[in-house]
Amino acid sequence: MQIIHSGDEVRQLVWSMRGRGKTVGVVPTMGALHDGHVSLVRKSVELCDHTIVTIFVNPTQFAAGEDLEKYPRTFDADCQAVKAAGAVCVFSPSITEMYPDGCSTFVDPPAVALPLEGISRPEHFRGVTTIVAKLFNLIPATHAVFGSKDYQQLKVVEAMVSDLNFGIQIVAGGIIREPDGLAMSSRNRYLSPADRASALSLSAALRGAKELARGGETDIAKLEAAMQKSLAGVDKLEYATIVDANTLQPMQTLRSPAQALIAARVGTTRLIDNERIL
Amino acid sequence: MQIIHSGDEVRQLVWSMRGRGKTVGVVPTMGALHDGHVSLVRKSVELCDHTIVTIFVNPTQFAAGEDLEKYPRTFDADCQAVKAAGAVCVFSPSITEMYPDGCSTFVDPPAVALPLEGISRPEHFRGVTTIVAKLFNLIPATHAVFGSKDYQQLKVVEAMVSDLNFGIQIVAGGIIREPDGLAMSSRNRYLSPADRASALSLSAALRGAKELARGGETDIAKLEAAMQKSLAGVDKLEYATIVDANTLQPMQTLRSPAQALIAARVGTTRLIDNERIL
Repeated sequence: MQIIHSGDEVRQLVWSMRGRGKTVGVVPTMGALHDGHVSLVRKSVELCDHTIVTIFVNPTQFAAGEDLEKYPRTFDADCQAVKAAGAVCVFSPSITEMYPDGCSTFVDPPAVALPLEGISRPEHFRGVTTIVAKLFNLIPATHAVFGSKDYQQLKVVEAMVSDLNFGIQIVAGGIIREPDGLAMSSRNRYLSPADRASALSLSAALRGAKELARGGETDIAKLEAAMQKSLAGVDKLEYATIVDANTLQPMQTLRSPAQALIAARVGTTRLIDNERIL
Repeated sequence: MQIIHSGDEVRQLVWSMRGRGKTVGVVPTMGALHDGHVSLVRKSVELCDHTIVTIFVNPTQFAAGEDLEKYPRTFDADCQAVKAAGAVCVFSPSITEMYPDGCSTFVDPPAVALPLEGISRPEHFRGVTTIVAKLFNLIPATHAVFGSKDYQQLKVVEAMVSDLNFGIQIVAGGIIREPDGLAMSSRNRYLSPADRASALSLSAALRGAKELARGGETDIAKLEAAMQKSLAGVDKLEYATIVDANTLQPMQTLRSPAQALIAARVGTTRLIDNERIL
């Protein structure tokens, strides 16, 4: 396992790979890797000649009062998981490597960042687009693999890549779920047994909406009401909505492509989940 | 002369050059090339194996009411000037190539963008950092050459490159002046003969401040007062100031590195100029 901490070093490595005509995949993560991340690493390993997994808990995407300090750090286990998934290179910079004193340029995210998470976490996507731009500049890869659980993040990154002309292909991985339906998340380890039971209502609400849609229901208000009913047991429902899957703009009547997205607090843990409805 | 309009095409070209181990210089311009630009192209040609000159009048760095529509377009003469300077490749995209519908990601400029031009033209540097980021992503060059007449722009681009980890070396060209001292600018062609005479007070004020400083004057207030006196004939003085040459923050007593910067309207034309004082 090659562990790189220096931005210059990882850039040199990627340039040397590309100079030899190789494809390079990057899988940006905040560590605390679970099977969802592992599936992304595997996807990159299948697609590309070389894969670099980045592990960096990015402070600029956490607001004050969010879980930056307690965010799980499991570096050694993460490296084992990367290795098991078939990759051999981890880029793990320090905070001062990524944000030295005086660093003050940010990437203002695209319009698709404004609804949903953009309302719940107004600074979040600015931190995401900034760190992703920085990582893409340090790692001039051919492909970057992002998960779909953070569906809006995926759309934000796709739009940023297109708007700012990054020469990298964004590849989306699917959502990996526990056997009972809970979407895998680094934050699931915060859940108490009672929280864990309550958290199942997110995926249940999405499945329920999808079944109603398959059964012919096209009234978004009714579909959303059904999701909200399923989510009655969560501690705080931030949103449970069905929107245009590309723009994330609301719709009145179900039409393709439609994505259902949920954000809710269970105990003190904030969870998100989503599903293509049509 | 190779003229490229497509972003994908120029990226392919640059990758093929770099894949052969060549250095590539990019010289971003808005066209209307004068001897100042030509000196930048020459610098790139001397430094790098290949040079790409970009010609794009970037709408996002003009505010409403500024001179976007009347900004001089002299494409054929520009290509001749590029050729005479020893470069053979021009990237000249359309507005829809650079800003397709829905394009909504911007680069929020660094702190050094806030004073001076940041006050006079609050949206300007956001447009500059955004287009420069886009061009650097389309043209993954080893070097980029920027002029020093837009001194704050040079500092903004340097900070952006460092903050966002662009793998490109910024090279600064000097200010090229007319024999009478007027800094070359694409906007000089707007000046009437009377404006032209009045415009000389910018470079005269800078020379005067430098002479006073050489004579031992270290009181910034006195140095700035002398500049303002020299500039009494301009139609609107926006600023005439001496600041830290790196941070562009004010200083009370002259210390190195100190940069004098002026922005003023002469007739309807906005001119800027600057000089290292110490």
